[in-house]
Amino acid sequence: MGTHPTDTDTGTAPGGGLDLDGLLRRGTARDWRTVDPDDVDPVRFAVIGLGWFTRGRALPALADSDYCEPAVMVSGSPGKAERVAADHDAVAVTYDEFLEGAAVEAYDAVYVVTPNALHLDYCRAAAEFGKAVLCEKPLERDSERAAELVEACADVPLYVGYRMQTEPAVRRARELVRAGYVGEPQAVQGSMTQRLLDRIDPNPDQWRLDEGLAGGGALFDLGVYPLNTTRFLLDADPVAAVGRTKATHDAFDEVDETASFTLQFPGDVDAHCFVSHNARHGSRLAVVGTEGRVAVEPAFFQDDDRVLHVSAGDTETSIRFDRVDQMREEFDYFADRLRSGEPMYADGEHGLFDVRAMEAIYESEATGGWVAIE
Amino acid sequence: MGTHPTDTDTGTAPGGGLDLDGLLRRGTARDWRTVDPDDVDPVRFAVIGLGWFTRGRALPALADSDYCEPAVMVSGSPGKAERVAADHDAVAVTYDEFLEGAAVEAYDAVYVVTPNALHLDYCRAAAEFGKAVLCEKPLERDSERAAELVEACADVPLYVGYRMQTEPAVRRARELVRAGYVGEPQAVQGSMTQRLLDRIDPNPDQWRLDEGLAGGGALFDLGVYPLNTTRFLLDADPVAAVGRTKATHDAFDEVDETASFTLQFPGDVDAHCFVSHNARHGSRLAVVGTEGRVAVEPAFFQDDDRVLHVSAGDTETSIRFDRVDQMREEFDYFADRLRSGEPMYADGEHGLFDVRAMEAIYESEATGGWVAIE
Repeated sequence: MGTHPTDTDTGTAPGGGLDLDGLLRRGTARDWRTVDPDDVDPVRFAVIGLGWFTRGRALPALADSDYCEPAVMVSGSPGKAERVAADHDAVAVTYDEFLEGAAVEAYDAVYVVTPNALHLDYCRAAAEFGKAVLCEKPLERDSERAAELVEACADVPLYVGYRMQTEPAVRRARELVRAGYVGEPQAVQGSMTQRLLDRIDPNPDQWRLDEGLAGGGALFDLGVYPLNTTRFLLDADPVAAVGRTKATHDAFDEVDETASFTLQFPGDVDAHCFVSHNARHGSRLAVVGTEGRVAVEPAFFQDDDRVLHVSAGDTETSIRFDRVDQMREEFDYFADRLRSGEPMYADGEHGLFDVRAMEAIYESEATGGWVAIE
Repeated sequence: MGTHPTDTDTGTAPGGGLDLDGLLRRGTARDWRTVDPDDVDPVRFAVIGLGWFTRGRALPALADSDYCEPAVMVSGSPGKAERVAADHDAVAVTYDEFLEGAAVEAYDAVYVVTPNALHLDYCRAAAEFGKAVLCEKPLERDSERAAELVEACADVPLYVGYRMQTEPAVRRARELVRAGYVGEPQAVQGSMTQRLLDRIDPNPDQWRLDEGLAGGGALFDLGVYPLNTTRFLLDADPVAAVGRTKATHDAFDEVDETASFTLQFPGDVDAHCFVSHNARHGSRLAVVGTEGRVAVEPAFFQDDDRVLHVSAGDTETSIRFDRVDQMREEFDYFADRLRSGEPMYADGEHGLFDVRAMEAIYESEATGGWVAIE
C-alpha cells in the first residue's frame, strides 16, 4: 500500500548531507517539471461541480495556467453552468448531460470537485470516456466507494488533488527530512482549525454538513491535510490510529465538528493531529527528530503565507516563501505529468489509503482504542 | 480530585473581558505575594539530595532568596555533604543521620530532591519532625507510594515543586485562558524534548535510567511538565489517557526514552503530548480555543527564554519575558505561603493525581486503548 514518489529527490547535498543553501535557491521552483508548456497542447478540463471553491480558486487557476484550459463547465444547475461557462468561454453542461457523454470531444481531463459522495459516478463516467481524472480529496465518502472509484479509473490517469504535495514549502520541508536534517523522525504534530460557521453563514446547510454527501466532517475536510501531508513528509503510511470527534453546534448534528487523533507510523513515530471547524483559524505541521525539527506554519490554508521553520544543532531559522497559487501548482503538475506520460502522484491507491485511515479513526472512537489501518 | 487554586485571578479586566495591557504591566510580577520578606524570618531549608540539579540550580536560588536560606545539606556521601555545606555555611548531614533527627533544630522545611523512590522516606521523616515539605515532582515512583507520602504529610504543609506554576509566562497564559481570551478551549498541544545522553555523558548510569529509583523515564521526567501545566492552564484534571512509549538506545533498557500520549479533559478537550530524551531540544505548550490561541514557546526548560504567543481575532502577538530564576520563584512562593499561613498549591493530592495519570498512560500502552484516570 502506498508506494511513495521518488521523483523529487533534489534536496540532498552530495553525500547525503544538508543543503539549506540549495533549498533557498530552489525556493518555489517547480522541481517536478518535465515538459515545457510551450511544447505541448494545453490540457482542456471539464470542471464538475461549480461551488464557491471552484469559482473562487480552481477556475482562476485554470485560466492563469500555461498548461491548462477551462473548457467545459458541469453543474447540477443549468443556469449556473451557463453563467460560469460564459465567463470562461467554455461549454455549459448539466450533470446528467455530462454522464450521457455531452461535449466529450471538448475536454481531455476532468476535475471532479462535487460533494464527496458524487465523486464515484463522475470519475467512472470520465474514465469510460477515456479521460484523465483529477479528483478532489477525500476520494469518496467511504472506502468501499473509494475502492470502486480506483477500480473504475484503472485504465486512465487518476490523480488525487492533494495540493500540499505540490506546495513548494512542503516540498522543501520534505527534502530536509529526506536529507536527514531532523535525524530520525520521532514525532509529528499537526493541526488545522477554522471557524467554518463564520465563513458559510448565512447558508449553513451546505453539503459538508450532510453525512450522506460528505461521509465525514472536520476529519474528512481538514483532517486529511495533516494526515496526508505527514505521509508525504515521512514517505511512509500509518499502521494504526486512535482518535475521537465531537460536535457542539447544532449545524454539526450529522458530522463531526472537531477531530483529535493520533496516527502511528512505522518505527513507533506518532503523529498527533487536531482539526476543527470551531476553533480559531490556524494550521501547522511539525516533524521533530533526534537532531532537528522542521515545521511548516502556517501550513495548510491557501490565503496564509507559507513559512518553513527549521531548527537543528544550536540554531533556528525561518524561511518565508512567496505565496504560490496552490491550485495552479496542482493543475500544472497534473498536466505536466499527463503530457509527459510520467507517472503522477498521489494516485488512487494513495487516496484510498487516506479514506481507510480516517475510517479507522472513526472506528477507534467506537472501540476506545487503537485500530489497525488495513 | 484536584481542586485548583483561585488565588491568582488578577488577569481579567472588569466584566470578564480581555486585558492584554494589564498582562504586559504585570509582566514577571509576583502576583502570589502575600508577605514582605523583611517582615518575616527566612525559611531555613534542609536540602536532601545534592545532585547536579541541586548544586547548579536549587542552591544558588536558595542563596539568592530573600525568603529562604540553605541551612542543612543532606547527602548519602558524607564527603559531598561536607563540601557543599562548606560552600553555603550550612550543616552537613548524611541521609541516615537525617532520618535519625540530626540537626533538627537547624531547619524549618525540607526540599526533597532525591531519586523519586526515596521521596517517601525523607518526606515522612520530615513530617514526623514537624517540618514543612517541598518535594520535587513526580511525587514518588508509583501512586501507592505517592499516596503514602501524602498521608504521611497530612499534618504539615506539603508542596510539590511544579516550577511551571510559579513561572510568570505560564501564569500570564493562564490568566488569558481564564479571562476567555481563547474562548472555549478545544485542544492542547504540548511537547518537551531533549537529548539527555548528550547531557549526562560520560556518566549514563544515573538514577533517571533506573526503573526502581525513577519509576518511569521520559514520561516521569518530562511528561509531567505538559501534563501538569495543562492542568494548571485549563484549571481542570484529565479523566482518561491513551498513549505509548518507546526506547531505542541501550541506556533506556529499563525506562522509556520517549512517550506519546493524549489526555482527555472534561468537555472532550484533548491534550496531545510528546516528550523525549532522544529528540532535538525544544518545548512548547499551546491552548487552542474557539476564539483564539495562547502558546508558551519555549515553555519548559529553565535556560530558554520564555515567550508567550497570543492570537485572537485577526491579530497575533508575541510577548517575551525577562527570564526569572524559576527555582527561586518556587522557593519564594513556598516560603511566602509558609510564613503567611495561606494555603499552598500544588498540594499533595494535586501531585498524586499526576502519578496516577502517568500510570494510566503506561497502562494504556498495555491495553491498547483509553484508560480512565481514577
